[in-house]
Amino acid sequence: MEIPEAFAERPIRRWNTILTCGKVEEIFLKKNEQGTASGLKIIPLGGLEQIGLNITAFEYEDSIIVVDCGLSFPEDEMLGIDLVIPDVTYLKDNIDKVKGFMITHGHEDHIGALPYILKEINVPVYATKLTMGIIENKLREHELMNTTKRKVVKFGQSINLGQFRIEFIKTNHSIVDAAALAIYSPAGIVVHTGDFKVDYTPVFGDAIDLQRFAEIGKKGVLALMCDSTNAERPGFTPSEKTVGKTFDTLFSEHSDTRIIIATFASNVDRVQQIINSAYKFGRKVVVEGRSMVNIIETASTLGYLNIPDQTLIDVEQLKNYPNEKTVIITTGSQGESMAALSRMAGSIHKKISIVPGDTVIFSSNPIPGNEKAVTNVINELLMKGADVIFQDVHVSGHACQEEIKLLYTLLHPKYAVPVHGEYKHLKAQAKIAKELGIDKEDIFILHSGDVLEISDEKAEVTGRVPVGAILVDGLGVGDVGNVVLRDRQHLAEDGIIIVVLALDSYNSQLVSGPDIVSRGFVYVRESDELLEEARLLVDGAVEGCLEKGQTDWGKLKSTIKDVLSEYVWKKTKRRPMILPIIMEV
Amino acid sequence: MEIPEAFAERPIRRWNTILTCGKVEEIFLKKNEQGTASGLKIIPLGGLEQIGLNITAFEYEDSIIVVDCGLSFPEDEMLGIDLVIPDVTYLKDNIDKVKGFMITHGHEDHIGALPYILKEINVPVYATKLTMGIIENKLREHELMNTTKRKVVKFGQSINLGQFRIEFIKTNHSIVDAAALAIYSPAGIVVHTGDFKVDYTPVFGDAIDLQRFAEIGKKGVLALMCDSTNAERPGFTPSEKTVGKTFDTLFSEHSDTRIIIATFASNVDRVQQIINSAYKFGRKVVVEGRSMVNIIETASTLGYLNIPDQTLIDVEQLKNYPNEKTVIITTGSQGESMAALSRMAGSIHKKISIVPGDTVIFSSNPIPGNEKAVTNVINELLMKGADVIFQDVHVSGHACQEEIKLLYTLLHPKYAVPVHGEYKHLKAQAKIAKELGIDKEDIFILHSGDVLEISDEKAEVTGRVPVGAILVDGLGVGDVGNVVLRDRQHLAEDGIIIVVLALDSYNSQLVSGPDIVSRGFVYVRESDELLEEARLLVDGAVEGCLEKGQTDWGKLKSTIKDVLSEYVWKKTKRRPMILPIIMEV
Repeated sequence: MEIPEAFAERPIRRWNTILTCGKVEEIFLKKNEQGTASGLKIIPLGGLEQIGLNITAFEYEDSIIVVDCGLSFPEDEMLGIDLVIPDVTYLKDNIDKVKGFMITHGHEDHIGALPYILKEINVPVYATKLTMGIIENKLREHELMNTTKRKVVKFGQSINLGQFRIEFIKTNHSIVDAAALAIYSPAGIVVHTGDFKVDYTPVFGDAIDLQRFAEIGKKGVLALMCDSTNAERPGFTPSEKTVGKTFDTLFSEHSDTRIIIATFASNVDRVQQIINSAYKFGRKVVVEGRSMVNIIETASTLGYLNIPDQTLIDVEQLKNYPNEKTVIITTGSQGESMAALSRMAGSIHKKISIVPGDTVIFSSNPIPGNEKAVTNVINELLMKGADVIFQDVHVSGHACQEEIKLLYTLLHPKYAVPVHGEYKHLKAQAKIAKELGIDKEDIFILHSGDVLEISDEKAEVTGRVPVGAILVDGLGVGDVGNVVLRDRQHLAEDGIIIVVLALDSYNSQLVSGPDIVSRGFVYVRESDELLEEARLLVDGAVEGCLEKGQTDWGKLKSTIKDVLSEYVWKKTKRRPMILPIIMEV
Repeated sequence: MEIPEAFAERPIRRWNTILTCGKVEEIFLKKNEQGTASGLKIIPLGGLEQIGLNITAFEYEDSIIVVDCGLSFPEDEMLGIDLVIPDVTYLKDNIDKVKGFMITHGHEDHIGALPYILKEINVPVYATKLTMGIIENKLREHELMNTTKRKVVKFGQSINLGQFRIEFIKTNHSIVDAAALAIYSPAGIVVHTGDFKVDYTPVFGDAIDLQRFAEIGKKGVLALMCDSTNAERPGFTPSEKTVGKTFDTLFSEHSDTRIIIATFASNVDRVQQIINSAYKFGRKVVVEGRSMVNIIETASTLGYLNIPDQTLIDVEQLKNYPNEKTVIITTGSQGESMAALSRMAGSIHKKISIVPGDTVIFSSNPIPGNEKAVTNVINELLMKGADVIFQDVHVSGHACQEEIKLLYTLLHPKYAVPVHGEYKHLKAQAKIAKELGIDKEDIFILHSGDVLEISDEKAEVTGRVPVGAILVDGLGVGDVGNVVLRDRQHLAEDGIIIVVLALDSYNSQLVSGPDIVSRGFVYVRESDELLEEARLLVDGAVEGCLEKGQTDWGKLKSTIKDVLSEYVWKKTKRRPMILPIIMEV
């Protein structure tokens, strides 16, 4: 791509480390000693090649700022793991440079790792009001409120941190108060869209600030880091308001039944629209599910939800109203086994039972990987006689191809760095960028850990920093790694056989055992013969070793393993974990 | 619904137990002693409420015939299980009545359990030629060829078995030689569609025999058991031939790269069309993946595949041809981790490496539950520089709503019994049946195990038979049940802690231990302190018990469990399996 004229002339800028509201004075700073500009380093520490774990460091000389700090949910093979957070060794190693976290919006894949990472990297957090409200809920849970510096930022406002100035720009997304960031550095401006869509008629607040994007585009943008989630989808994502119309239609069509609507807890606009329709049709609203209750409380306290008086009722009051005068807003739209809707479907919800005729609406699409769980819940609801509506009551929060093109066209970046998506999504955005005239060499599909150094003159991946997924299991952060996971997978597959025997430490005589105990291998009561035969075989092998004067217990254990695993494989074609334990008495 | 005139007048019929070809003499038999017709029992032994495990018994007085005998693949929570087969206790209990298995087509969910069930219920198997060829591959593997009576049936041909006559009717499906069954019983005719679609322009053989369905409809059909898989989808499923056109287009667009196409091994027509396009564009064809090789061998031996001479080459010969002159047909379209395509994507295929520029086509849709695995393979292929095409190169093998309506209209059944699908699919077909004028009370959404007794006069669920899923793990059939699975899930979640100690059986003194061994719990080398503290705690508890003269080892074990699990939960918020083992010396 030709460098836009405005951009080519752009001088090198630097800003003071002051927090300024509204309009910011841009202070031009001198070039460095060699008379050339240093490069800006963009270092994604997660979030590429996977959904979730979004965190990107921007480094210029002595300053690092970090955009987002998300978690991801465990892959299927991460048995027993609760959640996954990014490895921030690079930030720890450069702790003196790190100035703060800029958070684009309040979804888990952008804020979920904060409470864990802040314990190690205690720097200020910057976010818009609702985003900060949601973050503070987490900080309270982790008792970090007193130790975490927080600054609520308004749209249009900029933060000066070290060599950087960061401007928060209004966007639209499936959670209110989402921001794009214009990151001003001496090397140039990088725009990070966060997660966004273009909604000309949002439910709450303003449309995405396209004018500001245009202004910044005029100044000249070095690189655009744009949301790739829907880059495979042609066209435009419909406005959130279209779902409101669908609710009105559904409420009028189902005026004689109870209505239960499952949606994402954090989609405050969606909840607002359900409340609007409920109010319009004279229904009372019950909110079910812990995360739903929490977010509605936060959002309405902060003024992001407008709930007419006497519309919300407590679940205990449900019985005082006829079914057709109530709406239940609930969690569980992803078929999560412990969420409120799944518990209703499975008849284990303590307060709400599905009754024939109930209308259940999934105002959501299944997130990839959750399809089967969602279908299971739908089937259970249908079996209970509910009417289930699960198509076309949802719009995405992410930009489709035409919206992505709009942003590229307004911003006219020199470099394109697609973010937020699996490889195929990044690739799809790269294709769009190319169609819009950006040179192939100026498009960077990065891997987490890549150090992309960019300046006016050139951009290239100049290094790698350590990255990875830290597994959180209960209170343990990082104490479950590959060894433990491999053991869990092995145990899950075919169970375990434990062989215990006691040896006289003096004359190496077998004084007790071998005994065989198994778990998760076969149903023991019906496999007496198999296990007894195994025991005799081990007994023979052990006696054989001892007779030959074998006193190396390591070798004795490996003999037991070999004999037993061969026998078990022959008999069952299974490979349980075999664990010999020798006691010395 | 009004009973069609032709149907109302239909006399009670019975046929001799003789195998007849082509046209069958229908021998009218007397009514039973009470002068009324007995009811026909339809007993689904699996296949409802789930995909797979299709098997249905039809019982009339002293005769039972069984339609299909499928497996299902394990659910996520069935850790370590290879496959699932139906519980056929009911057939075993009525073995004298069982006349044979009628197999509608050669997919795993219709034939996969046969080799297991035949070992217990050794009755003849009836199927069309290709279906039988595929069954015989399985019988060979299980060494059942010599003991299994088999009869290849032609379309239009009927089998007389006890009180039943069964006619095989040509349909279309994503595997050649699929049949619907008209099941003639003294109580009336039941039509079972098997899996079907309406393809007016099939790749191999004839279109579905709509004329025969119409004729049978004229005779009067008691019940229709119709495929529900696509009952939620409006319109018509496109012809398999449309995919052939797509291949031609893709081959002409990608004339300068190697083409790799993943599809279902059993879709012989699809393979034929790939071969056709390859031949047309002068490419050699390599077949990869064991199941793909097997089925192509069977299909071409039996005359269902037409492969031009010198089109197929061995994988070893690939290097002798330029990339753009080759096509690889491969398994792995569902992202199965050990399938050929996944191994290529993961660079662990021994003979084929993905090179930048390769065109990889997924001629398939992900089966629900496989979405994530498929996406992972796509991402890996893209990272290797392949161009991946994964949309719109597939058509379904199942009838959409208009095709279902066509069959109902031709057959005009009194009762509708939707089959083959999850509850939501059955429900969707029930809705269609109702729209077509069938009374709500004449539509039966059955559960596996229901006994539906039908006659001209009435239809009702009159009982239940035992049904269930038998888990196959390695060589073990049914030896893994809920207890073992629960243990595997527990082990998978948080691992295991084993406490071993040796007691002097004479004076109940601790002579060795307690020792603590863990697997899948924490990374042991970094958790010395935790485990040592746990050991001391257990030691104290054991000594305490022994001092108090506690000699009940059951109580001693439960003390150890309690102390240890409380400590571990407090320290880690995990609940590993705790297994105390006491040795007597």
